[in-house]
Amino acid sequence: MHIGRFRYQDEVFYGLAEGERVFPVEDPFVSPEPVPGRQFALAELTVLAPCRPSKAVCVGLNYRDHAAELNLAPPEEPVLFLKPSTAVIGPGEPIVYPAMSARVDYEAELAVVMGKRARQVREEEAKDYILGYTCANDVTARDLQQKDGQWTRAKSFDTFLPLGPFIVTGVDPDDREVSLYLNGERRQHSSTAKLIFPVYRLVSFVSRIMTLLPGDVILTGTPAGVGPVRPGDRVAVEISGIGRLENPVVA
Amino acid sequence: MHIGRFRYQDEVFYGLAEGERVFPVEDPFVSPEPVPGRQFALAELTVLAPCRPSKAVCVGLNYRDHAAELNLAPPEEPVLFLKPSTAVIGPGEPIVYPAMSARVDYEAELAVVMGKRARQVREEEAKDYILGYTCANDVTARDLQQKDGQWTRAKSFDTFLPLGPFIVTGVDPDDREVSLYLNGERRQHSSTAKLIFPVYRLVSFVSRIMTLLPGDVILTGTPAGVGPVRPGDRVAVEISGIGRLENPVVA
Repeated sequence: MHIGRFRYQDEVFYGLAEGERVFPVEDPFVSPEPVPGRQFALAELTVLAPCRPSKAVCVGLNYRDHAAELNLAPPEEPVLFLKPSTAVIGPGEPIVYPAMSARVDYEAELAVVMGKRARQVREEEAKDYILGYTCANDVTARDLQQKDGQWTRAKSFDTFLPLGPFIVTGVDPDDREVSLYLNGERRQHSSTAKLIFPVYRLVSFVSRIMTLLPGDVILTGTPAGVGPVRPGDRVAVEISGIGRLENPVVA
Repeated sequence: MHIGRFRYQDEVFYGLAEGERVFPVEDPFVSPEPVPGRQFALAELTVLAPCRPSKAVCVGLNYRDHAAELNLAPPEEPVLFLKPSTAVIGPGEPIVYPAMSARVDYEAELAVVMGKRARQVREEEAKDYILGYTCANDVTARDLQQKDGQWTRAKSFDTFLPLGPFIVTGVDPDDREVSLYLNGERRQHSSTAKLIFPVYRLVSFVSRIMTLLPGDVILTGTPAGVGPVRPGDRVAVEISGIGRLENPVVA
């Protein structure tokens, strides 16, 4: 299934995207059952971020090649940080370059979307708590990340968390190809098979720290090849079997 | 005014606490007008955390003496981190010692509660966006803070953000005495007059990074004297003119 959030005129709703048709659903975190008798053409809808996370839990340095390019040792345990819900934007919405930074980078990542409240979940049962997967761009003010030591300011600006287009269910998260295109040119390319901490282990780890709520997302880290964006650029995160998330950058 | 959130049987509501009486209000972020004809005795209610923040933005090392006790230089700009909404508990609720940590510390802090959506707010106008102030305990797994480098895991465990008891309006945030009592013995004692970055400057700074929503909180940092808690302890944050927030610690 491809689960999305959509706007039609003043109405916002969840729906299942099937090809060029969208079938509204009441609440995909409860049931994927479509509302009887309603459908839309995808082309007449605005595609929004596919969920409204109460929190986005992010994992730093989860690909060895990215840790190496930042001259950092790969961690023994996942290194976590949070992005606020106010950073979330959907496909096509602009990433706004903040006045405080002179160096903003893209970071392509696989995002896990939680389907159920998860607390102290074992790795073997993590799958049952996941609704599906989507594309994420962990936009980062690299200069502030280096200046502050703590990564929060660098990661938390409004518009710094593009998500979408859809939550895709029923895929194996451990062999997704993750790519980033800057103005059509590929700049990042790796596979989630190379994650230091794979998806189910991350879900278990995070759930032993903080309760995960339906719609919360876990960003699984970015591979090598991060680099700067400038106003006027277009960045696209593409994940095999999941989709393509494209956003313009504006001043 | 003293604005709180309360539970009576199965009902949860906001209200104004006046001495031993509580007058329910519909939504204190819209209007402090009491619902006509309803009141409770404070003693028959459970006092909950006074707001439900979408995010808690915290400021590290904002008192020179605390930076010194951690052997860290005071920062040039506020150092931010986030605590998730799932960490929030109210007065009297237990702080749960996590299995992952062997060293959990209290940190008494003044918390700012936002009253309005705030984005790119100037320091001179920050006051207009604040609903009031409450007590916060920025509970921290000190061993994990040191191990991870990033502070998020150490600060984000469920129950690690006691807030309350009430949001107090109309007070000057710049001369509050902040104290922490461990089992009745005072361990921290300072004044917000000693903040490196005072309250209105913090609100302005944070609002230039991320949009603040009604009910969001900013924790303004902790003074010197942090130290460990153990199961069985009782910790109380006391702030002059604001109130006293007490929580037990359990295994």
